[in-house]
Amino acid sequence: MPLTTPLTDKLGISHPILLAPMDMIADARLVRAVSEAGGFGILGGGYGNRTWLAQETAKLDGLRVPFGIGFITWSLAKQPDLLDIALAAKPAAVMLSFGDPARFAAAIEQAGALLVCQVQDEAMAEQAIAAGADILIAQGTEAGGHGASRTTLDIVPAIVDLAAGRVPVAAAGGLADGRGLAAMLSLGADGVLLGTRFYASEEANGAEEAKRRIRAATSGETVRGIIFDLSRNNVWPAPFTGRCLINDHARRWIGREVDLLQQVESVSADYMKARADGNFDIAAVIAGEAVGLIHDIPPAGEIVARIVTEAEHILQGRRNSSWPLRNEIERVR
Amino acid sequence: MPLTTPLTDKLGISHPILLAPMDMIADARLVRAVSEAGGFGILGGGYGNRTWLAQETAKLDGLRVPFGIGFITWSLAKQPDLLDIALAAKPAAVMLSFGDPARFAAAIEQAGALLVCQVQDEAMAEQAIAAGADILIAQGTEAGGHGASRTTLDIVPAIVDLAAGRVPVAAAGGLADGRGLAAMLSLGADGVLLGTRFYASEEANGAEEAKRRIRAATSGETVRGIIFDLSRNNVWPAPFTGRCLINDHARRWIGREVDLLQQVESVSADYMKARADGNFDIAAVIAGEAVGLIHDIPPAGEIVARIVTEAEHILQGRRNSSWPLRNEIERVR
Repeated sequence: MPLTTPLTDKLGISHPILLAPMDMIADARLVRAVSEAGGFGILGGGYGNRTWLAQETAKLDGLRVPFGIGFITWSLAKQPDLLDIALAAKPAAVMLSFGDPARFAAAIEQAGALLVCQVQDEAMAEQAIAAGADILIAQGTEAGGHGASRTTLDIVPAIVDLAAGRVPVAAAGGLADGRGLAAMLSLGADGVLLGTRFYASEEANGAEEAKRRIRAATSGETVRGIIFDLSRNNVWPAPFTGRCLINDHARRWIGREVDLLQQVESVSADYMKARADGNFDIAAVIAGEAVGLIHDIPPAGEIVARIVTEAEHILQGRRNSSWPLRNEIERVR
Repeated sequence: MPLTTPLTDKLGISHPILLAPMDMIADARLVRAVSEAGGFGILGGGYGNRTWLAQETAKLDGLRVPFGIGFITWSLAKQPDLLDIALAAKPAAVMLSFGDPARFAAAIEQAGALLVCQVQDEAMAEQAIAAGADILIAQGTEAGGHGASRTTLDIVPAIVDLAAGRVPVAAAGGLADGRGLAAMLSLGADGVLLGTRFYASEEANGAEEAKRRIRAATSGETVRGIIFDLSRNNVWPAPFTGRCLINDHARRWIGREVDLLQQVESVSADYMKARADGNFDIAAVIAGEAVGLIHDIPPAGEIVARIVTEAEHILQGRRNSSWPLRNEIERVR
């Protein structure tokens, strides 16, 4: 029973699983692994590092399966020509998050790529559809990294109802296993976009210590706020905040953001040094609420296969009788 | 395809849908309507009003279907003999929320009733299981009224994994339709507990204006905080806060809780007058994030039937082919 949906049809992929374009973490190697496993890898263009983007897109040359490239919209607006580098790599889609996508839509369409827009509320979804979005990502507050306050369980049905079948909707935030995929399909979404789960993969371009901390963290050990942005002098506009693992630095400053700002020069110097040193007691590991569901660091392709198999078993388990479900899942794991 | 689970087996009910014991709102009439529809009505004993409890339990005398009675644990501890009134009514279960259930467990078991414990994190779940809980409710922050900060999508799989089949787990918070039930079953829960959805029912013992405001509210128009507790001089211990519809009073005081506390006498007098007058621009309508999914005020029995039918169609839709899902749902609605 393949889990095909309007999302898989539109992207030309086998499984409704998208790789979140985690800044630098989702590099060409991880994109390739996810796409070759039948999901949809999206390169983490993030704030837009020209050298890195050119280097990573070059590595994707000749990839025979569809992939995408993602940017932070408001950051891309500061160096819009990066979009040309991205489009020259012939991505099947460009994903834009955090800002009005309108000014980039025409170029993306002309290049024959789909426009994927991540949204955190209904107004952003309307804006994206008006701009010509082909696919929406409804992102809940459980997500790692930047996002807003509405929960996945709240925002996904809201955006599904708003889209009303006009465009496929994928769910993001707090998802890492087949249960989450099955649940989101049940809510009416057409697939899922996963970040943290793929961060803890062999191929992800992250520090081994960061991956180990994601694997070790239990549910509830992340926090959403502005501490790590303040600490690296990276100011984001409301309503966006960032979620990361709770570490010593977060514990020190949670609830004391004003104090942090009043001594930001020294805090920032220490923070940047910790980042360079890979000291994750101070530097943030950007991760979402799904950390509690992550217990290993396998190859990304295995993650895709495992999630699909589990979701299929869950949805098929309901088919045959009323309560084989838990046993079915146990058998898969 | 009946959606039977260990939860329905244990409670002896037809459908895995429980009525949240909303203080006063879930009165005997609503309990009866939910239980007679095949769900599980739970009387809203709340803080414990002796006269009301005696009156409402008397109305349940002779009910031929199982029902429960719920209390706020820390409040019940102040007048523990209310439990005797409850147990004399022969409920199939007593539900305790917000506090250590241990001291009440023996009396509940001796009376032949099941102990249902609502929990908001893993430590509370361990405490409840140690006390002899027969059923757990994993409540996410999306829930109306009192609760904590973890989201439903986060806490449900966490508690399901922790329970590991020892006791059934129902999901609460942000759920109001068949999509939510299907999603929670997919996450591994054995059913759902719904508050706000049943508040907006014909039988609920709430003001018509409150019901109308729930029906009119869209997703994102609720807020979790301590403003309405401060305003009624009703102090709850951390980590518990309350969620209600955003109204003029909430907009006035959000982020100004210290100011509110410094003039609490006059604010409280105005607030209690507004409550008495049914002025919901000031008095809170206690409701959860599921308001966005609620568009009518039908009989409670119709709500049960509709949710079950929709969830069955969603889960069966996956059975027959890969993408009849949205059409299936449209047909049901």
